[in-house]
Amino acid sequence: MKTGPALIENSITSPQGFVAAAVRCGLKKSGDDLAIISSLRPAVAAAVFTRNLVQAAPVTLSRLHLKSRQHRALLVNSGGANACTGEVGLEDARQSARLVGELLGCDAQEVLVASTGVIGVRLNMTKLESGIRLAARQLTRESGSSVAEAIMTTDTRPKRSIRRIKVGGKEVTIAGVAKGAGMIHPNMATLLSFITTDAAISKPVLNRALRSSVDKSFNRVSVDGDTSTNDMVAVLANGAAANPMIDSRSTKDYERFERSLTEVATELAIAVARDGEGARKLITILVRRAATERDASLIGQAVATSPLVKTAIAGEDANWGRILAAAGRSGARFDPLKADIRIGDLIVASRGTGLPFSEERAREILARDEVRITIDLHQGDHEITEWTCDMTEGYIRINADYRS
Amino acid sequence: MKTGPALIENSITSPQGFVAAAVRCGLKKSGDDLAIISSLRPAVAAAVFTRNLVQAAPVTLSRLHLKSRQHRALLVNSGGANACTGEVGLEDARQSARLVGELLGCDAQEVLVASTGVIGVRLNMTKLESGIRLAARQLTRESGSSVAEAIMTTDTRPKRSIRRIKVGGKEVTIAGVAKGAGMIHPNMATLLSFITTDAAISKPVLNRALRSSVDKSFNRVSVDGDTSTNDMVAVLANGAAANPMIDSRSTKDYERFERSLTEVATELAIAVARDGEGARKLITILVRRAATERDASLIGQAVATSPLVKTAIAGEDANWGRILAAAGRSGARFDPLKADIRIGDLIVASRGTGLPFSEERAREILARDEVRITIDLHQGDHEITEWTCDMTEGYIRINADYRS
Repeated sequence: MKTGPALIENSITSPQGFVAAAVRCGLKKSGDDLAIISSLRPAVAAAVFTRNLVQAAPVTLSRLHLKSRQHRALLVNSGGANACTGEVGLEDARQSARLVGELLGCDAQEVLVASTGVIGVRLNMTKLESGIRLAARQLTRESGSSVAEAIMTTDTRPKRSIRRIKVGGKEVTIAGVAKGAGMIHPNMATLLSFITTDAAISKPVLNRALRSSVDKSFNRVSVDGDTSTNDMVAVLANGAAANPMIDSRSTKDYERFERSLTEVATELAIAVARDGEGARKLITILVRRAATERDASLIGQAVATSPLVKTAIAGEDANWGRILAAAGRSGARFDPLKADIRIGDLIVASRGTGLPFSEERAREILARDEVRITIDLHQGDHEITEWTCDMTEGYIRINADYRS
Repeated sequence: MKTGPALIENSITSPQGFVAAAVRCGLKKSGDDLAIISSLRPAVAAAVFTRNLVQAAPVTLSRLHLKSRQHRALLVNSGGANACTGEVGLEDARQSARLVGELLGCDAQEVLVASTGVIGVRLNMTKLESGIRLAARQLTRESGSSVAEAIMTTDTRPKRSIRRIKVGGKEVTIAGVAKGAGMIHPNMATLLSFITTDAAISKPVLNRALRSSVDKSFNRVSVDGDTSTNDMVAVLANGAAANPMIDSRSTKDYERFERSLTEVATELAIAVARDGEGARKLITILVRRAATERDASLIGQAVATSPLVKTAIAGEDANWGRILAAAGRSGARFDPLKADIRIGDLIVASRGTGLPFSEERAREILARDEVRITIDLHQGDHEITEWTCDMTEGYIRINADYRS
């Protein structure tokens, strides 16, 4: 309990020197829809953004602001993506960063901005600005736990993760929140996630650590193969832990930091897959013994995005032929006649050919809320893990009626 | 009525010199599940096959048999894909072609074989062989109309198309059937389709005509992005029309033949999209003024396979941002700030930015059972049309429970 009251045991403000606030300003029909995360002292920032050619105004602006040497705050709203809104949309994003800077006493450039919601509709700036003013007045350490809720759209659960490590005898904390649900797919930053840490770390080293951890986590998650115009993973590091500065990647301290950051990112990424729109099951796809990492990755992604695989798992049906067929169309090079497939620990196909297996045992395995699929290619020694969820009628219900 | 009784007005046996039979041998739970299409005289054949790395035994065998100079029959069964069945599966396919050859008095090599159904389960050869014997006894011109039904799996409607043209004063008929529903995606032969024609045409020229027409039809259709292990489009041309032999691609006769073949293939391809699993709407995606054909094609396919676009159309929701976002992640190069988007004739976004539009008018357009999406890139002069269907809860219901 040494880090404070129970409320901030696992919150975006658990690292020292961070405050936050989540408020409702009316952009969404109900619930909080705007949050500010702020460091009490100057922090360094790193971020990765969507690779979609169509980039929302907050992405364009945050890319620009990322050039600043130091940062103080992250502003995020749900209830509107501010994407495909033209020059006025960009000016709206700029204006909201300016207002945060004014209220927090920092430069507009020190503010990163993120939005999520419907594309193509201008944000209601009157509501947004009143929300920013309200949130800026309410920044506290205790409010941190409500940020995870405020960024939810069709998410059913808030997503948080935290790790504590020792760096040079000092306790360093890394905490993150994420918002997922739909439009989740690599590559990149296929959702919103914000990570805070009190580590003292240099900006370029933080940048490399973030990229490495995102490649092993958020870039290995798919809900529906659709990437968004707004996706962003950002980290603020404020040095409040007073550890010896991590300014090189060839140190044990760096390794420990990157490993923990990856754990936080992976926990959030898995939470996003598990909470995919309409999902009832988390599917973990392990591609083993591929000739190259690229082959493993192509197969992992093809299987993770196959509607036929995802609906079969929803139906608790051991229809492994769809798994092999998805691998076969992935573009990866492998010999199908060497591939083994397992569902859980049950081997259903060996050397590309179906084996007799206990349907009862298969049903038992598929009835669980976590299903592991293993594709063993016997081609080399590259391995990859990919996460997705099953595809149910709920996915259709949510997405057929999102705007209304 | 000059081509015979009403039954064969539009049937796979409408071209002269073809007979067929469809029977039930018990591979499926109900309905006909095996068909033979046979030419009374030696025919030339062409076929295109799935590009999936995992290829079913009938695909492997038919590729091999295609090397024969002449062909007499096509055997097709539903109720079992004979894919991922190993060496015994290939021997089963071989044995069924041998039996057809024996019964029809031709070489096994002159028989092409196709299967559709669940992957990874061996065909029941006792049932299959009794079905082949039964069908071989029942081959008539009148039975042709039942072939389209016999190859259905989750299709709700049989799919047929026919064209009649004059070649050198002779009437030439081209007729086709197709089976689609799920696992439909380019490239290639992403379904089963069989085309017969009484045209006299050389084998290499027929091959080029088929490839060209498939590129403009079946390769422009997507239901769910999943390609199958069994897909095949085959054409038999038997010369019974006694037209001057089409043996060069640089003739008016060839042009007319290829155009009509493309029309038949396109009509079948559109019927497949319209009857996608659970579909209520046909979606036609027109990508205009792309810099290259590849860019147009990448965008067409990304939009056609986007679950978010397809569920929005199912919900009759003019959520055009999802269309632009899908284009943005397609890998095509374009400037989003030049793109216009239309739903039907209603312009909803101009230069990448949302326009105010009548939601009432949008609802009217989206309530129809055919929806056209136009993406005008203003980048060049390449254009492509792609067909898909909406994604409804029906898709999930069908696919979550296919094997049982």
